[in-house]
Amino acid sequence: MRKEFRELASVEEATEVTEELTPERRTEEVPLRQARGRVLAEGVDSPVDVPGFDRSLMDGYAVRAEDTYGADEADPVTLTVVGTVSAGEPPETVVREREAAEIATGAPIPDGADAVVPVEETTADGDVVHVRKALAPSDSIMFAGSDVAAGERALRSGTELSQREIGLTAAVGRQKVSVYARPRVGVVSTGDELVRPGGRLKPGQIYDVNSFSVAAAVEEVGGEAVLYDHVGDDYDRMVSVMREAAEECDLVLSSGSTSASDEDVVYRVIEEEGELITHGVALKPGRPTVFGRVDGTAFVGLPGNPISALSVFRVFVEDMIRSSAGDGGDGRRTRQAKVADEIRLDGGRTRLLPVGLVEEGGGVLAYSVDKGSGATTSLTRADGIVRAEASTNYLDEGEAVDVELFGDASPPELLGAGERDGFLNGLLQGFDARWLPAGSFDGARLLRDGVADVAAVGTAENTAEAVGVDAARVRGYERQVGYVGDPGGEVFGVLPEGYAVRSRFGDEHPDAEVRVFRSERGAANAVESGKVDGALVGEDVAAETEAGFEESGWMHIDILVTEDRRGKEGVVSFLDGLGGATPPDGYRVTDDTGDWVTRD
Amino acid sequence: MRKEFRELASVEEATEVTEELTPERRTEEVPLRQARGRVLAEGVDSPVDVPGFDRSLMDGYAVRAEDTYGADEADPVTLTVVGTVSAGEPPETVVREREAAEIATGAPIPDGADAVVPVEETTADGDVVHVRKALAPSDSIMFAGSDVAAGERALRSGTELSQREIGLTAAVGRQKVSVYARPRVGVVSTGDELVRPGGRLKPGQIYDVNSFSVAAAVEEVGGEAVLYDHVGDDYDRMVSVMREAAEECDLVLSSGSTSASDEDVVYRVIEEEGELITHGVALKPGRPTVFGRVDGTAFVGLPGNPISALSVFRVFVEDMIRSSAGDGGDGRRTRQAKVADEIRLDGGRTRLLPVGLVEEGGGVLAYSVDKGSGATTSLTRADGIVRAEASTNYLDEGEAVDVELFGDASPPELLGAGERDGFLNGLLQGFDARWLPAGSFDGARLLRDGVADVAAVGTAENTAEAVGVDAARVRGYERQVGYVGDPGGEVFGVLPEGYAVRSRFGDEHPDAEVRVFRSERGAANAVESGKVDGALVGEDVAAETEAGFEESGWMHIDILVTEDRRGKEGVVSFLDGLGGATPPDGYRVTDDTGDWVTRD
Repeated sequence: MRKEFRELASVEEATEVTEELTPERRTEEVPLRQARGRVLAEGVDSPVDVPGFDRSLMDGYAVRAEDTYGADEADPVTLTVVGTVSAGEPPETVVREREAAEIATGAPIPDGADAVVPVEETTADGDVVHVRKALAPSDSIMFAGSDVAAGERALRSGTELSQREIGLTAAVGRQKVSVYARPRVGVVSTGDELVRPGGRLKPGQIYDVNSFSVAAAVEEVGGEAVLYDHVGDDYDRMVSVMREAAEECDLVLSSGSTSASDEDVVYRVIEEEGELITHGVALKPGRPTVFGRVDGTAFVGLPGNPISALSVFRVFVEDMIRSSAGDGGDGRRTRQAKVADEIRLDGGRTRLLPVGLVEEGGGVLAYSVDKGSGATTSLTRADGIVRAEASTNYLDEGEAVDVELFGDASPPELLGAGERDGFLNGLLQGFDARWLPAGSFDGARLLRDGVADVAAVGTAENTAEAVGVDAARVRGYERQVGYVGDPGGEVFGVLPEGYAVRSRFGDEHPDAEVRVFRSERGAANAVESGKVDGALVGEDVAAETEAGFEESGWMHIDILVTEDRRGKEGVVSFLDGLGGATPPDGYRVTDDTGDWVTRD
Repeated sequence: MRKEFRELASVEEATEVTEELTPERRTEEVPLRQARGRVLAEGVDSPVDVPGFDRSLMDGYAVRAEDTYGADEADPVTLTVVGTVSAGEPPETVVREREAAEIATGAPIPDGADAVVPVEETTADGDVVHVRKALAPSDSIMFAGSDVAAGERALRSGTELSQREIGLTAAVGRQKVSVYARPRVGVVSTGDELVRPGGRLKPGQIYDVNSFSVAAAVEEVGGEAVLYDHVGDDYDRMVSVMREAAEECDLVLSSGSTSASDEDVVYRVIEEEGELITHGVALKPGRPTVFGRVDGTAFVGLPGNPISALSVFRVFVEDMIRSSAGDGGDGRRTRQAKVADEIRLDGGRTRLLPVGLVEEGGGVLAYSVDKGSGATTSLTRADGIVRAEASTNYLDEGEAVDVELFGDASPPELLGAGERDGFLNGLLQGFDARWLPAGSFDGARLLRDGVADVAAVGTAENTAEAVGVDAARVRGYERQVGYVGDPGGEVFGVLPEGYAVRSRFGDEHPDAEVRVFRSERGAANAVESGKVDGALVGEDVAAETEAGFEESGWMHIDILVTEDRRGKEGVVSFLDGLGGATPPDGYRVTDDTGDWVTRD
């Protein structure tokens, strides 16, 4: 009933396949105003001299340099002003011996003159001007064609047009340019369990993530994404949508439903209606990646896990799109980083490890995020991927790695870890910060390992000591916690071990039966829906639900920072915000002094 | 007749003015598909649990973990398969003791089951399945709400939406999001000497560069640029266009015509019809920068020199647009670099130095590019600016500087310098390369100073020795040169000193009267237009003109590279291309062996 993959393509073989499948470059003419970000498909030769005439670089006076010989502050030469030359009009004035013409920046040099003296070096005096500087011929003149000569190549084919190249193209008078067309990339969505955002979920269904993240990725790397109607798992509809996409696009992508199981309709459609080139790739994640063709159009089937889909997109599809759009490959972003803390790997296949980045001193550290959880929240915690060969068993702390970035991802200004709550959430608003909710102990560990810039922990001294981190306690605050549901119930919703509120709950209910939730809100929701009897949560979390709240008391949270990150810009801003913040309801500030929490 | 600026605002004062003038943020709702690159104006809370049900992370069998106790390769447990659970439908199957249900990735866990065994760890056998692995409860299950709990904040206000945040927004089912509107930025073009690209130039006119480069810069930093009709220098038309732009936009920009001279209509319009806030800034370039308001709308008048306009835009205007578009400032790109070679400065005002960047080892070097020439070609040679305080007299070699990048400029893959010709141009096609045409001697100097990765020089040994550079000669070629025009004429067009063809000309015509051109094409054009009698140029340059060509002989060019750049990716690609290239007509390859050209 299930087919196992029989031959997995190696990453190298799959990369060769992507080169074959890369859509051919098409060109189109676009007006200069729409050419930004595009790649020239032609060399731009200047049809004119730039500038087209000898031009003054200054406001001042056009003169004969020899007439200014010997002039200085103490002994200016006096010239007769015989006219004025404005920008934009051919000069009628002629400058003869001991004469000068007033001239504006950009105006043509009048006949007879061979230099311009800036107005600052002169004093006008009726019909004459006193010149306080000796000039050499050519001073403050830009000669015709000296910027770009007529016929000269201003920009090479293959050049990406930014604000600067747009400026140069305008300078040579081109109104339209020939650029590579953005490849049209069809995104086909499959799977009966998927519903488009905005729709209503039936039991067992989830929202379609990949169509949107993949379409955005297509656009980030220079393609034009076309999203097709969701087709569920119906074979015939899938065939017709695939054919439609193949007809209209240069490349068709799908995600999920690419394994060889009976239900995976994409796989069958490619196998039966198109051309299936690979039966999976020796990659983890990414094994079910499918390469093929439908009606001659290139097709790539990405895996269904959201972060895996973007990882495989990054490794195989990005270059196809960039190359088709004329990008020589330099647009693809990678960043050198050092591994923050040892990453252990299971062997067997090439691994694509999603990593987050954090700035440290002049460099960047990479830390492992997602462990194949399929969580969509991992998406916003990863900045790129590190490729590890099949033979690699671990990446050592400090090891240099190349991070293949998602789009043009960059490290956040601040990376925090540990507890999370409404006060912190408010502080981080509008801030380029990433916060890893990991609980007090793992938060302190992330601080110790140099991953986190700051950590929020429940009991600073104990946590820091247990974890072995030298950190300053920069500010403490208290959070009102209590029970939603029945404080005397049998089954409780709790956070994972390591969170302050879990420890407190453990103290109050040492023998209770628990069910673990990733967030207090999740636990509170479970009380409301009757899955558990009660949960210990913050008063602010309880206030957002319909469940009652019974105070338990104030729980202490400290913000820790290590000395070597204390001067980092994002940390300084965060601590400034923290210092000046008025906590919301359910929080109170206990002190604002910082003491070193030392390891021994 | 001319007004001098009386009070120059300091850069700090001007920056305060920009903060006051920053357009207020507006918000708008956009469909998720159009939200990429935008900044959230709301916190996105999940209306649903993600996932909405306990979900299988694997293809396999849903089982009761306790039933697998003790199972291993040698001693599998056998369970009865009682049904199949597909993704997207609520399970009807119930798993009882010693039973299993076949389950697909993403399908809901059926009642009774508390773990999933991956298909790889099982063998199906008719109505039963042999399970070769002992499981713990929760194995391969993603619990309801464990990704995002209903009510939980998925994304904070102020978050920029990349492919990854788009994915998370889709996951929580949001179809539309509230984002900050892109500020509308009007670009008004003035000056009688300017003509829009595509138009015909009359004598004394040039093409309008800044309207296009500034509009592109506006878009690069998140604004929506609106280009208004060119209005020349007519006061009344300028007033009416300014008022129109002020009415329709959040910010109005102009460039040029902002000095206090009589002809500078923009200055007068702001002074008389609007509100003039500054009378120039103590900045070089950028002194004539004007800040003000027209009918209550913020106005900035940029200087007219193209690179100065973008520099002042970068320093003052970029943040106004970014901030208005919701960017907290992290979008603004800067890059740490070291000064490649000492840069001497004249004092007095804060300087904005256009610099180019080149990658060296792990770091980046910055080198000075434009010296106020007003050349539009400088635009494509500069990657950003370095701000130097008024008190700074020089930037030392190796000094660390922050480069404020133009848009998201990055160093080219290859930086070459020295000679330039059609063969090199062809080699660089489609390559992310920058080539600084500097002649052999300055090319070798740029190589020596670590600015250039490679140099093309006329006489490798002599040049390298004179300049003092250790470099490998990786390939030599010859170029046919000769005369356009009259080889026996009186006045010749020549390149600047330091170019190989200039030296050759000097040997052939030691006493000739010369006029200097920046390019051979410029010199050849001057022959055609009768400005000079003849010029020594490459056969390929002559072939592009109507002038006749009289052979002079073959001129030798060598490609040099220093040992420490030889392994750089862009250099390797360039040398590969060079090695395999067939030279075009007018060129021949003389050898392909590399010898070290040593200093002593």
